Amino acid sequence: MARNSLGREIPDTFAGKKLVPYTDPWSLQPHAERSTRAIRRLTHNGSKLVGGLREAVIASGLKDGMTISTHHSLRNGDALLNDLVREIDALGIRDIKIASSSIHVVHAELIPFIRKGTISGLECGVNGPIGELISKGELDCPIVVRSHGGRARALICGEVPVDVAFLAAPCCDEYGNFNGYYGPSACGSLGYAQVDAQHAHKVVAVTDNLVPFPAVPIGIPQTVVDFVAQVPSLGDPKKIVSSTTRITTDPIGLQIAKYAAMVIRASGYVKDGFSFQTGTGGISLAVAEHVRDMMRKDKVKGSFGCGGITGYFVDMLEEGLFEALFDVQCFDLKAVESIGRNRKHQEMTAGTYANPFNCGSVVDRLDCAILSATEIDVDFNVNVNTESMGYLLHNTGGHCDVAAGAKLSIVVAPSIRGRLPIVRDAVTTITTPGETVGVVVTERGIAVNDRLPELKAELIRMRAPVKDIRQLRDEVYAITGVPRPIEFDDKVVGLIEYRDGSIIDVVRQVRR
Amino acid sequence: MARNSLGREIPDTFAGKKLVPYTDPWSLQPHAERSTRAIRRLTHNGSKLVGGLREAVIASGLKDGMTISTHHSLRNGDALLNDLVREIDALGIRDIKIASSSIHVVHAELIPFIRKGTISGLECGVNGPIGELISKGELDCPIVVRSHGGRARALICGEVPVDVAFLAAPCCDEYGNFNGYYGPSACGSLGYAQVDAQHAHKVVAVTDNLVPFPAVPIGIPQTVVDFVAQVPSLGDPKKIVSSTTRITTDPIGLQIAKYAAMVIRASGYVKDGFSFQTGTGGISLAVAEHVRDMMRKDKVKGSFGCGGITGYFVDMLEEGLFEALFDVQCFDLKAVESIGRNRKHQEMTAGTYANPFNCGSVVDRLDCAILSATEIDVDFNVNVNTESMGYLLHNTGGHCDVAAGAKLSIVVAPSIRGRLPIVRDAVTTITTPGETVGVVVTERGIAVNDRLPELKAELIRMRAPVKDIRQLRDEVYAITGVPRPIEFDDKVVGLIEYRDGSIIDVVRQVRR
Repeated sequence: MARNSLGREIPDTFAGKKLVPYTDPWSLQPHAERSTRAIRRLTHNGSKLVGGLREAVIASGLKDGMTISTHHSLRNGDALLNDLVREIDALGIRDIKIASSSIHVVHAELIPFIRKGTISGLECGVNGPIGELISKGELDCPIVVRSHGGRARALICGEVPVDVAFLAAPCCDEYGNFNGYYGPSACGSLGYAQVDAQHAHKVVAVTDNLVPFPAVPIGIPQTVVDFVAQVPSLGDPKKIVSSTTRITTDPIGLQIAKYAAMVIRASGYVKDGFSFQTGTGGISLAVAEHVRDMMRKDKVKGSFGCGGITGYFVDMLEEGLFEALFDVQCFDLKAVESIGRNRKHQEMTAGTYANPFNCGSVVDRLDCAILSATEIDVDFNVNVNTESMGYLLHNTGGHCDVAAGAKLSIVVAPSIRGRLPIVRDAVTTITTPGETVGVVVTERGIAVNDRLPELKAELIRMRAPVKDIRQLRDEVYAITGVPRPIEFDDKVVGLIEYRDGSIIDVVRQVRR
Repeated sequence: MARNSLGREIPDTFAGKKLVPYTDPWSLQPHAERSTRAIRRLTHNGSKLVGGLREAVIASGLKDGMTISTHHSLRNGDALLNDLVREIDALGIRDIKIASSSIHVVHAELIPFIRKGTISGLECGVNGPIGELISKGELDCPIVVRSHGGRARALICGEVPVDVAFLAAPCCDEYGNFNGYYGPSACGSLGYAQVDAQHAHKVVAVTDNLVPFPAVPIGIPQTVVDFVAQVPSLGDPKKIVSSTTRITTDPIGLQIAKYAAMVIRASGYVKDGFSFQTGTGGISLAVAEHVRDMMRKDKVKGSFGCGGITGYFVDMLEEGLFEALFDVQCFDLKAVESIGRNRKHQEMTAGTYANPFNCGSVVDRLDCAILSATEIDVDFNVNVNTESMGYLLHNTGGHCDVAAGAKLSIVVAPSIRGRLPIVRDAVTTITTPGETVGVVVTERGIAVNDRLPELKAELIRMRAPVKDIRQLRDEVYAITGVPRPIEFDDKVVGLIEYRDGSIIDVVRQVRR
């Protein structure tokens, strides 16, 4: 057991793996070569079509103890991972680790297969009930939560060797070329799948839309695809694209957005060459609306918008406010339609997006980013993984990647949620280190990290409601009371891995 | 010394490397993992701009004995390789191997640097005087000629480890994202450079057109580029794109094209889903014209055109005769313009094009391909490397790759060139094994390989001038006489590597 630099107790090992405690966002250096795979020669004019999913599992050579992956671009509409695990189970294969790019609520169907040992580990974060059960000690399945960039790093460095990637391929030909642009399960960008396609030892393209050769434009090429499997459906198209991408109408949210826009204005970054990322939350989109107005008014020609992309950013691209969009994942149908048509709407891999161990990822080029939070502490550390009961309910996404990369990361959150204080002495779980967070914006005011004294001065000059973060906490505690600490057992059930592979926090079993 | 399966004497080693004699086009299996490179973390917000070429060489850490590469998409207009070697020489670095994707006549400027030991080996074929001097024994520099697919294989398998790739980047941003579509040195596809970008240990993007971040659409991403160097010019734009891409007007050439079109017609492949490749020669383009007419007349919806792409194929794509183009290299400005605009004009890497050691290259999907020849023997073996005096004057290009991949490879050549017999008992050098050549078409008639009896029968039914290849040879010899064999010394000066890495032939020093 050791304490990392943020004071969190980190065990020496977890699920048999030696752990490196987190130190800081910058100094850890890679000592690895890019992961490799055995080279295979396809028989001349050989076929890759193997039939359905079960045949694909057999053809792939999947065996007990191996690691599989899928991508999450179909999000809560994804049917593939559930179908796949059912087939694996039916074939009697056990002790499989899942290293998908993310797991969603729909994958609660995996719970019985975890209980019976078909699945024995999660090398990826989860959204939803699986994490809750693991937190409660009701499901025994070690879990390692990684950010999008951290996952790319782990695969690229060979830290997580994926034996077989089963990649949903919305528009695919019989030789395995595919893209995400067209078909009933179109999801747009295949940014997450790209990493697996290059680094998994075997790659299966799974499609519900086999098109004549060649499936152009090609996102993932035939040269890395070993097998092509056909399924009736990859998922529920209605749920593939989230529809919760509307601007908030909540007055508190609108207030927060207004303050966040003041911060962006004060930063001085909104000028030619400006680059920007927001998420899909209603507050984030309200901030984006302010930014759009600023850019229009000042006739700013921005550089790029980044991240999971919405129709909002597509409009800004088409209006000429940005030169390009970098898209790791499409969040709505307008984005899906745009990426298939507009070459300035650039698909990027999760590695290009956010891997800290390469010759520079796109997050490193961001000026301003809007990030959400479940909890924020007085050192600006942010938690997005665990919720008020201490349960692991959310994946990290790109949170810590973007915070580290952007020149100015702005965390937006209401100060109180469901009577719980959001700004507080300590966060339950540290997802993102405070050192990488510039500003916290709540409806009660704006707290600026001490490392940005000029921004603070400018905000004060603008008569923005700047407050010390401890003052924010005190105001909140005055209403909510001091939160009662959650009681945890010693048992570590999950790791929160920082993007560089060091362990920034752990998730302990909640005491019952 | 051993004889390979085609009877060629192959030494056990060459330039210190153990050789594998060629057996057949299909059976050699890879026993390798994909080559890897050390992972490097760019300092947060670190700059990649290093100044000019000399600073880039210094920054790259290039040392005596290392291997460099460039790509040849700028062809005979390329200034980079000459400039680069001058800088390397000025820095006092010696014993450098060049593993570029091809070397052209313009690179004759390297000769003095080979003489003085700055350059000590060529891991790539050459077009032009360097090969001639090596053949004459006037330049001591071991040379390994590889096909486009074979080169990709050698880099990807790690057989040729490139220490530093210096990649001409016609449209590049300061973070190293680049494409070939725009700028004074626009060359279109960067198909060859893609392999080096992924597999060289260090990558330098060299540009004469630094554009604001991000250089979209991105062909080669920032994540693999270590340094960005600026130069006044990458080359002579007038020579970047060859203008010798016109249909022949020579009556013999037109006759050959007509016969080749009969062969294609007889093959039955010209139907929906048809795929086709030609080179840029005047005969090839005349064949393409016939094919276009056939496709129009029969209302054929083809699958794809492939290879180095000309405006001819662009027209066929836009007319709807093909669904897509696969472009490893643009041969004219119309192709350059198209690939930057039309997403059905698909850029492909040299590995995707033709590497025999992957999950299937694009050449494997070809129906018909038109190939040229310097000499053809009675076993259908083809030589494109050496000319009548025995000098190594030409690179292999995609010749043996396409022949192996296509269902029907058609070699077109006049039966006599400059009083020399083209169809003959034995070729000076075997580039492409006869087993992979379907038909030889000359103005005197059509010879069909015995492995295609149905095609032969159909051609006879069509009253095409089908002749046994020995009969063709006899007719030719009756005019030219039996060619006097070239006299060679025992000394092997170069290897002709087959696409799978085995040695199909060697080049010996010409006796003086």
